[in-house]
Amino acid sequence: MGRTTSPASKGKAPRTARGEKTLRKILDAALLEFGQRGFHDSSIVGITGRAKVALGTFYTYFDSKEAVFAALVRDMSRQVRDHVAPDIEGVADEIDRERLALASYLRFVFDHKEVYRIIDEAEFVDPAGFRTHYETAAARIAARLEEATAKGQMRDDGALATEVRAWAIMGMNVFLGLRFGVWGRQDAELVAAHANELIARGLKP
Amino acid sequence: MGRTTSPASKGKAPRTARGEKTLRKILDAALLEFGQRGFHDSSIVGITGRAKVALGTFYTYFDSKEAVFAALVRDMSRQVRDHVAPDIEGVADEIDRERLALASYLRFVFDHKEVYRIIDEAEFVDPAGFRTHYETAAARIAARLEEATAKGQMRDDGALATEVRAWAIMGMNVFLGLRFGVWGRQDAELVAAHANELIARGLKP
Repeated sequence: MGRTTSPASKGKAPRTARGEKTLRKILDAALLEFGQRGFHDSSIVGITGRAKVALGTFYTYFDSKEAVFAALVRDMSRQVRDHVAPDIEGVADEIDRERLALASYLRFVFDHKEVYRIIDEAEFVDPAGFRTHYETAAARIAARLEEATAKGQMRDDGALATEVRAWAIMGMNVFLGLRFGVWGRQDAELVAAHANELIARGLKP
Repeated sequence: MGRTTSPASKGKAPRTARGEKTLRKILDAALLEFGQRGFHDSSIVGITGRAKVALGTFYTYFDSKEAVFAALVRDMSRQVRDHVAPDIEGVADEIDRERLALASYLRFVFDHKEVYRIIDEAEFVDPAGFRTHYETAAARIAARLEEATAKGQMRDDGALATEVRAWAIMGMNVFLGLRFGVWGRQDAELVAAHANELIARGLKP
């Protein structure tokens, strides 16, 4: 297993199912440690303490605090994707699909409020990972929009329009998650329904 | 002048036009220092060096590095508002107004790319200021939407719908600014026109 498939540092990918499980425990503990204390006040000992693993075990999988943070950013990206994917699989109408994707994302945020602090702090701790996170998410939305445009479900206004729409939808989702998932709490389906009306038929009467 | 009207620390508001000008120089220098180096690597000496003022002058207006950072967050909020306001003044149609507001915001970002790093780092350095920044901006958009709803320009789907729309539009604008103002560069009017189509009539053919 190479660096692209495992979150572990180079040459440190686990080779057994047990190792995978330990790595998972370390990442889950890192989410809590970084999410609650922030990168600077977090420590590897804080992570291993939460994960209930020995300090040496940490170094079996990761080279440094920076490495586990970067791995966590990639892991969060994947978790969001893997959480949303089954909820939109096989949905033929793109507007419906975006509503279900947003509702699914909001439910993810309810259970993982720390995701905002992690991704937002990545701008400073792991700028490349931060940018990749959003570029990947936007590209995923753009692919859905393109598919819908090809099927005639949406107006085709060119490549720039598609990219603008993808980033607009992503930004919308991110801020609705912050407002109604982290700072407050609202029914995910209700928020998604209102937001979906906006992208379905706009604001005009 | 009290704390609410001046960015200076409590009891340190300038009393002369010359003092106001010096305070402005310090804030402009702080934007560059924090924007380029981040909060932790920034220093008061770095700020006064850029502003070409004595160290003692800094303390005439601010108590600490944290204080000038928090002042800068409020100052950036106000600068965005004051930059956009004249560009949308007197515009009667709300959809047009949102298009002009976004185009104006994008032009602001072109000239103040550092604003993203400042606001984003505020989440960690000045969490209350970070939240106030977005809540204030969303409330401003919500007020415009409510005005338009009262005039019959928009569907009235209740208070939650208005709040969802306001946060959605803000999120859209923030991410379009990041994508097309900081990470890349696109014609502000063109991006705003595409985004405006989305909120005007949605994505359906």
